[in-house]
Amino acid sequence: MQGKLIVFEGVEGSGKSTQLARLQHWLVAHSAFQKLQTAGIVPELIVTREPGGTNLGRSLRSLLLDHQPETALGARAELLLYAADRAQHIEEVICPALQAGSWVLCDRFIDSTVAYQGYGRGLSLSLIEQLNDIATEGISGDLTFWLKLDAAQGLSRSRRRGSLDRMEQTHLEFHQQVQQGFETLAERHPERIVTIDAAVTEDTVAQQIQTIMEQKLKTWYRKHLPIS
Amino acid sequence: MQGKLIVFEGVEGSGKSTQLARLQHWLVAHSAFQKLQTAGIVPELIVTREPGGTNLGRSLRSLLLDHQPETALGARAELLLYAADRAQHIEEVICPALQAGSWVLCDRFIDSTVAYQGYGRGLSLSLIEQLNDIATEGISGDLTFWLKLDAAQGLSRSRRRGSLDRMEQTHLEFHQQVQQGFETLAERHPERIVTIDAAVTEDTVAQQIQTIMEQKLKTWYRKHLPIS
Ligand SMILES: Nc1ncnc2c1ncn2[C@@H]1O[C@H](COP(=O)(O)OP(=O)(O)O)[C@@H](O)[C@H]1O
Ligand SMILES: Nc1ncnc2c1ncn2[C@@H]1O[C@H](COP(=O)(O)OP(=O)(O)O)[C@@H](O)[C@H]1O
Ligand SMILES: [Mg+2]
Ligand SMILES: [Mg+2]
Repeated sequence: MQGKLIVFEGVEGSGKSTQLARLQHWLVAHSAFQKLQTAGIVPELIVTREPGGTNLGRSLRSLLLDHQPETALGARAELLLYAADRAQHIEEVICPALQAGSWVLCDRFIDSTVAYQGYGRGLSLSLIEQLNDIATEGISGDLTFWLKLDAAQGLSRSRRRGSLDRMEQTHLEFHQQVQQGFETLAERHPERIVTIDAAVTEDTVAQQIQTIMEQKLKTWYRKHLPIS
Repeated sequence: MQGKLIVFEGVEGSGKSTQLARLQHWLVAHSAFQKLQTAGIVPELIVTREPGGTNLGRSLRSLLLDHQPETALGARAELLLYAADRAQHIEEVICPALQAGSWVLCDRFIDSTVAYQGYGRGLSLSLIEQLNDIATEGISGDLTFWLKLDAAQGLSRSRRRGSLDRMEQTHLEFHQQVQQGFETLAERHPERIVTIDAAVTEDTVAQQIQTIMEQKLKTWYRKHLPIS
């Protein structure tokens, strides 16, 4: 049986890394998941991220940062480099894991590219979608948790401060466009994106995610798990 | 007026670099071309190549070579990296030159990707075409000289030896597929690809190219050059 790709999306500071780690710990302690692991149905639980989930991704990141400012990297070239990183991530990490039946928890994926490069920076949405399709060969994730949080709140959380300065206000507009992108994606893809209210406590967010996971485990592994 | 992009294509050893340099020298000494330069209609004659026409391309090349063998670079990732190089080359070098009215002589371009990655390595032709379109924003060159030479002859020329060893024979099959790719492209795009018999002497090849250039100069710059 094919494994599962579970993605966390959302603006900066929405709690993706926090909730991904919590889900990981919850799963390894969860009896149904443990049964699937013991039976060898789900051999591994892999945690990864984009960009930078492969050696290539890490090299590209330093290449992007080292790039000489006098020959600024073009928007298309940049998009294509990120697509190369994603293609490698899919081929080297995600696909082999899914083929083995394993689960992959991934911090950001295709929706972030649409939200940040498309809605945030204004690059062509159809170009981004085309590149996402090429890079992923159509893999879009079995379940995506969109941690919905006001962009300003997310930025404050990241900075652990109460309010934003002028510089950060400008930055805020960009993040609001990104947020609009996630909003639109969640509306368009209700079959794979679950909206999670991330403005509540960490525990409450984790609780929402666990409730959905519990249901999904039963649906996905109906044949392998006894009805309880 | 928009400048001109002139491309040299063909298998290894078909004489691309030789003929590109000869055309460059012929043009700068040619009275009609000199007139266009003096009048500022064609400000510059730029010579470039793919891959590696930009700093990004050179960095990518070393990144591709340094890549750890235990995590082999996937075919899609590799194609996307080359597309990124091409997008940057177009944006940083080719487009600005063409917009200024300059001429660009380029050693290999989109047809090589179709011939080598598509026909040679068997990657999806539609994927390659899609990526070429994304990278170039539709620029396909004003004139492409396909230096048609038997693949075996090209390899011998490159190696300056008369015959191929067993290893090179295997290699030969690949180059024959590449050759087949160029053949198909030349049939499909007669409006931009001119087939040049490259099996003759260097001087005879140069003569064929100059004859075509002479005609093209008259057609392209009819308003700027007196009829002679
Ligand atoms: N529900 C929450 N309420 C308040 N603070 C939170 C919550 N979830 C996470 N945080 C804090 O917000 C900051 C950003 O969280 P993080 O998980 O790193 O977000 P992301 O990975 O989406 O950028 C961290 O300091 C984290 O401890
Ligand atoms: N028409 C020709 N006849 C014989 N040898 C040639 C001819 N054109 C080029 N050569 C030689 O063949 C070799 C390959 O030529 P080159 O221009 O480097 O090809 P490419 O750039 O297409 O690989 C060089 O040693 C060159 O001097
Ligand atoms: Mg994070
Ligand atoms: Mg050459």
